[in-house]
Amino acid sequence: MKISAKGVRSGDEEIIARVISMVENQRQQAFPLLKELYRDAELAYLAGITGPPGSGKSTLVEKLVLSWIAEGEKVAVIAIDPSSEFSGGALLGDRIRMGGISTEKNVFIRSMATRGYLGGLNPAIFDTVVVLSAAGFQKIVIETVGVGQNEIDIVRLADTTMVVTVPEAGDEIQSFKAGLMEAGDIFILNKADQPAASRMELILKQMLEMKDRQNHSCSVSAWQVPIVKTIATEGEGIEELKKAVARHRDFLSRSWKERNNRSRVIRNHVVHLMEEYLRNHFIDPLLESSYFQEILTGISTRKTDPYTAVEQLVKSFKKEQGNHEN
Amino acid sequence: MKISAKGVRSGDEEIIARVISMVENQRQQAFPLLKELYRDAELAYLAGITGPPGSGKSTLVEKLVLSWIAEGEKVAVIAIDPSSEFSGGALLGDRIRMGGISTEKNVFIRSMATRGYLGGLNPAIFDTVVVLSAAGFQKIVIETVGVGQNEIDIVRLADTTMVVTVPEAGDEIQSFKAGLMEAGDIFILNKADQPAASRMELILKQMLEMKDRQNHSCSVSAWQVPIVKTIATEGEGIEELKKAVARHRDFLSRSWKERNNRSRVIRNHVVHLMEEYLRNHFIDPLLESSYFQEILTGISTRKTDPYTAVEQLVKSFKKEQGNHEN
Repeated sequence: MKISAKGVRSGDEEIIARVISMVENQRQQAFPLLKELYRDAELAYLAGITGPPGSGKSTLVEKLVLSWIAEGEKVAVIAIDPSSEFSGGALLGDRIRMGGISTEKNVFIRSMATRGYLGGLNPAIFDTVVVLSAAGFQKIVIETVGVGQNEIDIVRLADTTMVVTVPEAGDEIQSFKAGLMEAGDIFILNKADQPAASRMELILKQMLEMKDRQNHSCSVSAWQVPIVKTIATEGEGIEELKKAVARHRDFLSRSWKERNNRSRVIRNHVVHLMEEYLRNHFIDPLLESSYFQEILTGISTRKTDPYTAVEQLVKSFKKEQGNHEN
Repeated sequence: MKISAKGVRSGDEEIIARVISMVENQRQQAFPLLKELYRDAELAYLAGITGPPGSGKSTLVEKLVLSWIAEGEKVAVIAIDPSSEFSGGALLGDRIRMGGISTEKNVFIRSMATRGYLGGLNPAIFDTVVVLSAAGFQKIVIETVGVGQNEIDIVRLADTTMVVTVPEAGDEIQSFKAGLMEAGDIFILNKADQPAASRMELILKQMLEMKDRQNHSCSVSAWQVPIVKTIATEGEGIEELKKAVARHRDFLSRSWKERNNRSRVIRNHVVHLMEEYLRNHFIDPLLESSYFQEILTGISTRKTDPYTAVEQLVKSFKKEQGNHEN
């Protein structure tokens, strides 16, 4: 079967995989297809999940996905590969564990890189959400390992964000990026049978209360961030987690406009596509021009400096654009 | 004393610190000063060092810096904070250990974030190199924690790149980004007194030989990447490491044109400044425009899609630029 909007909509896994590869590697060619897919597809519900390596994230995702497909849903998992971590072992383990659900029907798993060309958030991530939505997946889990800026950027794509912690994280939770505490809609305390669990729960509660106070969220309509205790390996707490996700989704649908989650996601996607466009149409051709070489020589010999050079380059670009238009 | 090129050149640490803060937070205002500093300063020799958390990097840096300043040099350390890692403890430890040299005369230490606005490599890192060079630091160590893409981006800034490994890393070295193996000019095997050290040395040697074969580097002028064994905590191997760094520097100066390290650094800096310029002058104003809001509404209601929208936005930008010029 060949690559087409129809092929994607049929749900054929091989076609979906090939389209995603196209989205990753031959982006320009993928755009006409993405346009077609976007306009006809209802965007799937996006559940983000993040937490430190070894917190049991993959097991949680696996159990959650199994329980969703048992109810007849089609679920996709986008596993984000942190390109900046020394966590080979843990990560590989994640992928292997995830392999447990990869053979299930109605489940599609794909790994993707965090960062695109030159460091911006990989725009192919959201493009893949478009493809999977068109292919009929109702829920997409975006899973990422870590608690830093990369993860904040990624979970900002999600409708509901789950942050996983473990009892032994204890004081280390202080090192979670503040933005991630902000972004969490549901906190999961996994390995809740460990002795330090109640202490960790207390720390989490205090942090959430502090956050509440900072936000002055006395409005009755505000979302109360729950702490869900789980023992992922034994499936304990998964039902409660599922209910918490459903409650948050319900909350979102009632307050969609207020929260504006979706417009934020769309807005970020447009910005990332813009950056990509500017790189492809402006920076890349420039890098190959003889004018750029001249300027580099000027900088090396200190006839000019990088700051003045950029001003000149932009000036020449504007002039050229002006000429094209007239 | 007030912020000025003269103040920076005097080497006053308080002024240097304030200028770097300006470079980080009020970039536009810093540009005139950066221009002035760039044209008069000889860029310092840049030594990059990276490796997994816990490999003893900070201790190595400390010993190396102490030994350099003992010879009368002024040395600065830029410690890159990986904004994407769950490594609070280890990192904090690094910073505290580094504190040991922070009170020394002729040493300046500064922490900086890896990523700038929207994910690109933080352009303030190279700007800071300009400032520190102008302030008379002859050597600048850029230290970063990890073995992934962030680290590759950063060590590309350096003249000489040191990659630290430890015996227990063993098979995990496979998870080092290939580009990092490529980038390493000197490999350090720290904790070389541990039992697994000889096995690790063998693995490293094999990897380097494989790399040599891939590069077909039969040229006599090619740099032979050394493996330096150290026990950082006891200062063992530091002299040998210092000599390896000096040898590589010497090699670079003989093959400067061939290797083109400096032009690559300058080139990357110009590209990052360009991206920053495009964001400031194009993307940011756009985000606040009513036109952008209209387009977002169009996407939400599926009258248009993100891919078509970006084409339209760029078109309107080009038109506007054309009008400005005429």
